[in-house]
Amino acid sequence: ERDKYENNDVAGVVTGLAWTRVGGDILFIESILSKGKGQLSMTGNLGKVMKESATIALEYIKSNADMLGIDPNVFEKYNVHVHVPEGATPKDGPSAGITMLTSLVSLFTQRKVKKSIAMTGEITLRGKVLPVGGIKEKILAAKRARIKEILLCEDNKRDIDEINPEYLKGLTFHYVKDMSDVLDLALTKEKVKNAKKL
Amino acid sequence: ERDKYENNDVAGVVTGLAWTRVGGDILFIESILSKGKGQLSMTGNLGKVMKESATIALEYIKSNADMLGIDPNVFEKYNVHVHVPEGATPKDGPSAGITMLTSLVSLFTQRKVKKSIAMTGEITLRGKVLPVGGIKEKILAAKRARIKEILLCEDNKRDIDEINPEYLKGLTFHYVKDMSDVLDLALTKEKVKNAKKL
Amino acid sequence: ERDKYENNDVAGVVTGLAWTRVGGDILFIESILSKGKGQLSMTGNLGKVMKESATIALEYIKSNADMLGIDPNVFEKYNVHVHVPEGATPKDGPSAGITMLTSLVSLFTQRKVKKSIAMTGEITLRGKVLPVGGIKEKILAAKRARIKEILLCEDNKRDIDEINPEYLKGLTFHYVKDMSDVLDLALTKEKVKNAKKL
Amino acid sequence: ERDKYENNDVAGVVTGLAWTRVGGDILFIESILSKGKGQLSMTGNLGKVMKESATIALEYIKSNADMLGIDPNVFEKYNVHVHVPEGATPKDGPSAGITMLTSLVSLFTQRKVKKSIAMTGEITLRGKVLPVGGIKEKILAAKRARIKEILLCEDNKRDIDEINPEYLKGLTFHYVKDMSDVLDLALTKEKVKNAKKL
Amino acid sequence: ERDKYENNDVAGVVTGLAWTRVGGDILFIESILSKGKGQLSMTGNLGKVMKESATIALEYIKSNADMLGIDPNVFEKYNVHVHVPEGATPKDGPSAGITMLTSLVSLFTQRKVKKSIAMTGEITLRGKVLPVGGIKEKILAAKRARIKEILLCEDNKRDIDEINPEYLKGLTFHYVKDMSDVLDLALTKEKVKNAKKL
Amino acid sequence: ERDKYENNDVAGVVTGLAWTRVGGDILFIESILSKGKGQLSMTGNLGKVMKESATIALEYIKSNADMLGIDPNVFEKYNVHVHVPEGATPKDGPSAGITMLTSLVSLFTQRKVKKSIAMTGEITLRGKVLPVGGIKEKILAAKRARIKEILLCEDNKRDIDEINPEYLKGLTFHYVKDMSDVLDLALTKEKVKNAKKL
Ligand SMILES: [Ca+2]
Ligand SMILES: [Ca+2]
Ligand SMILES: [Ca+2]
Ligand SMILES: [Ca+2]
Ligand SMILES: [Ca+2]
Ligand SMILES: [Ca+2]
Ligand SMILES: [Ca+2]
Ligand SMILES: [Ca+2]
Ligand SMILES: [Ca+2]
Ligand SMILES: [Ca+2]
Ligand SMILES: [Ca+2]
Ligand SMILES: [Ca+2]
Repeated sequence: ERDKYENNDVAGVVTGLAWTRVGGDILFIESILSKGKGQLSMTGNLGKVMKESATIALEYIKSNADMLGIDPNVFEKYNVHVHVPEGATPKDGPSAGITMLTSLVSLFTQRKVKKSIAMTGEITLRGKVLPVGGIKEKILAAKRARIKEILLCEDNKRDIDEINPEYLKGLTFHYVKDMSDVLDLALTKEKVKNAKKL
Repeated sequence: ERDKYENNDVAGVVTGLAWTRVGGDILFIESILSKGKGQLSMTGNLGKVMKESATIALEYIKSNADMLGIDPNVFEKYNVHVHVPEGATPKDGPSAGITMLTSLVSLFTQRKVKKSIAMTGEITLRGKVLPVGGIKEKILAAKRARIKEILLCEDNKRDIDEINPEYLKGLTFHYVKDMSDVLDLALTKEKVKNAKKL
Repeated sequence: ERDKYENNDVAGVVTGLAWTRVGGDILFIESILSKGKGQLSMTGNLGKVMKESATIALEYIKSNADMLGIDPNVFEKYNVHVHVPEGATPKDGPSAGITMLTSLVSLFTQRKVKKSIAMTGEITLRGKVLPVGGIKEKILAAKRARIKEILLCEDNKRDIDEINPEYLKGLTFHYVKDMSDVLDLALTKEKVKNAKKL
Repeated sequence: ERDKYENNDVAGVVTGLAWTRVGGDILFIESILSKGKGQLSMTGNLGKVMKESATIALEYIKSNADMLGIDPNVFEKYNVHVHVPEGATPKDGPSAGITMLTSLVSLFTQRKVKKSIAMTGEITLRGKVLPVGGIKEKILAAKRARIKEILLCEDNKRDIDEINPEYLKGLTFHYVKDMSDVLDLALTKEKVKNAKKL
Repeated sequence: ERDKYENNDVAGVVTGLAWTRVGGDILFIESILSKGKGQLSMTGNLGKVMKESATIALEYIKSNADMLGIDPNVFEKYNVHVHVPEGATPKDGPSAGITMLTSLVSLFTQRKVKKSIAMTGEITLRGKVLPVGGIKEKILAAKRARIKEILLCEDNKRDIDEINPEYLKGLTFHYVKDMSDVLDLALTKEKVKNAKKL
Repeated sequence: ERDKYENNDVAGVVTGLAWTRVGGDILFIESILSKGKGQLSMTGNLGKVMKESATIALEYIKSNADMLGIDPNVFEKYNVHVHVPEGATPKDGPSAGITMLTSLVSLFTQRKVKKSIAMTGEITLRGKVLPVGGIKEKILAAKRARIKEILLCEDNKRDIDEINPEYLKGLTFHYVKDMSDVLDLALTKEKVKNAKKL
């Protein structure tokens, strides 16, 4: 039995879409801050490439802090920890990139993540979003998990076009090219309840 | 021959339930503090995922110190060491998560752990408890070891419902959703004898 | 389907040519700076030799900062991160050397990279450019991706001479011996829009 | 041919019992201090679990320094090195735990180790002693090596009860539950000759 | 097709002789300094033993700085990077030792390397030169590459004596016992053009 | 063809006896000091156990500095590098222990090593010398290399007694129990020429 969407309304928690040996699934990216000196750590039985996604997201955020409205001193006063449940499942690949980016920007801005949304896509350092595989399986898993809106790279539109529209009922798709598209669509302007003062 | 429950009345010592190649068993999570600079070390022949559980528990505690009534300066003045006897047995998997969390919160608050209780469940960074496998074998081992109360994720209730009630006599089950449920049920308000002043 | 050339007009983004198991392809080297203490980090599923290329490029730049018009204090105030999309593809070998050099010099000088240009070649610490393999496949990929100008080591001219001129229509070749040739040909005198003040 | 017991009268040198592919044997745990900053290093061709025993022993000692009469500043002014001859033999497992604990407490207190005594048993962080395997082979080796007294976990008494009493002549057994039992039985109140002032 | 000798007239660039699976070849050792704290780094797809040669050379130089006319403060103010093109070829073994020593002494003294010279030989910490293998293949490669003078360990003279003198025409051999012989023969008294002030 | 004894008259250079797949051989332990902060590094294609021997020797020396007449401040002002030629030969095992100890004590005291002497034996932290294997092969190699005196553990006397006395002509054997025996026999009272002032 597969996971159900819960909610994204804690800062730093974002729903992604994964493609595993046993089919599509949703996953959660969870990030938290603790006092520290800017170290990034990760757990969740993650492979090298998936860990690289978190590094790329954090480097992008650091380099574009002004544009994102983040005080750059924050990076030197806190450690960031990124976790991806469930520990028994090995996870790898670049497709959680935009989910990680959204999680970290939510964390550093304490902005609320939009409800019922999930996403999948690789990120690049210069801010582009790249297409990923397993789209059909991921979409079916999203539906089962009661996701309403999905963010994908615009180059993945062709994958959606090949799916029987019957299966897509009740889902809204947003196609993105750049990280700024992702953040505009996935984050609300509102802060989370009990937002941390960073 | 399997282990017997002893007691949880030292701060930082908590009984967990494990599922090994040779069946269910109980295990103990033992944590201690020594003067230091906030390093976390682990022993007990632990695999990568089980080590990650201790990291997740500590990161969660650091990020929620206020809520848990822990002075955040403690994290910078002490090192934490977590050990899981018995060294000859390799151990892995995420199911000791709530046991580790309970151990570390008991350690940092010096609160006493409830008597005759054992537990099994994965933890997430945002404070959820996830279900784990091997429930039947773990429950039988708990009974043999004279455990009286067991903490499980509410999603593991279905596993208990499938067990012949005959086998469950004398056991009380508590189903939990969040870390706060775990801590409410597993820790007493009382401090341990000779509690450390942190 | 293969990548298309986009543009090189962000500082630190340069188009290279790669030769993979499935034929030639273009790739992008992306570099960014963030406040730090001179550390070099890399992502993109890179093998040991490809990582060495970034190290060689950075060491060369540090040792020749004056000649390149770079304030040497920059190296101690910023961290450099180099990424090569796409994370799912393992990449290795020395042939991205001149692309990495160009990326890093563009980053440290904020000079604009020439439009529609791509390159491939190994670098040495003393500033020479060495020939690389897979030239035919790389050239065909460059054409498909709408590259107009290509930088190669002069020792790779013989590889171009063996290709049917039909295939080379619309491509201009520049043969280089030294790093300074590469930088003269690949970087414009102009700074990028919104150039960072380093 | 097997080792002979020599003596334990240097601080930090304690005789243990080992069970190897070629039968039982005695081994020596040797520890020394040198000026430093509290680092623990180990040699002797030791496996991961055996190294963990030294870590557990040291963490236990640090956390219980008061009870053991050790000035906690010592841990920050000295490095500890633990060696187990003979380098050509790979060694692993948790059974040298109480031997390592005794060695380190002797080292930090400069108390003399009792003559003609050897021991085997796993340690836990909360101070319990756990039973170990290979008891029969270890006892025979102890006798050949002219050991007179042996310390074992009380749960290993059943293993002794199964040995032909003929083989046990001249040996005295002490069964222990806790680390404090071990230290009471293995260390004298006397300091070694030329005791170091720590 | 094999490499051609170019020149050694940049400080820190020296020609060596290598013996690979596909026969003899020449190689270049390239070293540069950048501001730093005395770290030694290496690139060029080097194996453990070849990396050790650079370490031995640097340790020898540090320990004999006075004799070599090098201000010992230099070692704490600069990092040294040693590279051996070509990255696609894995390289190992101790035979580049004297080439690395010559490269580093040239770098730290800014003395010019003699023209048209190449060398091969293992170094020791006490300053001896040891014989190496593959002499015949290396000599033939040197000739093809237009080398004029070759430095070898005196114990390799017997290998030269077994080669048909026909093949040796145009080559001058220098047999060395100690590092000081190497440096006397390989380095000129002159500094390189634009010598760095260290 | 095997190595010849040269001389031990540089501080830190001592002749040992090795037993390799191709028979016995002599080897040299070479140690040097450079300004630093007390780090120990090693080269020479050494395995884990052989590296441990150098660590044990250095820890023993640090802990017994007074007895050995060494100013303990030396350990914090210098780095020690130990090398064992020849890099192409992998080396391992504990038998170079007394050779490494002698090398390091010679280095730190600048005392001259005795002429024409070689040695083999394992060391322990408490200062004992343990017997080693391959004695016959090592002795024959020593003779071929023109060694005159040999230091062995007293427990290796039985191995010498089994060798045809014919083969032992011209060799003097010294049997040792403790490190102090080794140092008394191997080091002269004299300092080396141009002794370093530490
Ligand atoms: Ca799942
Ligand atoms: Ca995803
Ligand atoms: Ca058990
Ligand atoms: Ca558990
Ligand atoms: Ca591609
Ligand atoms: Ca390229
Ligand atoms: Ca033995
Ligand atoms: Ca033992
Ligand atoms: Ca070549
Ligand atoms: Ca060479
Ligand atoms: Ca030899
Ligand atoms: Ca030896």
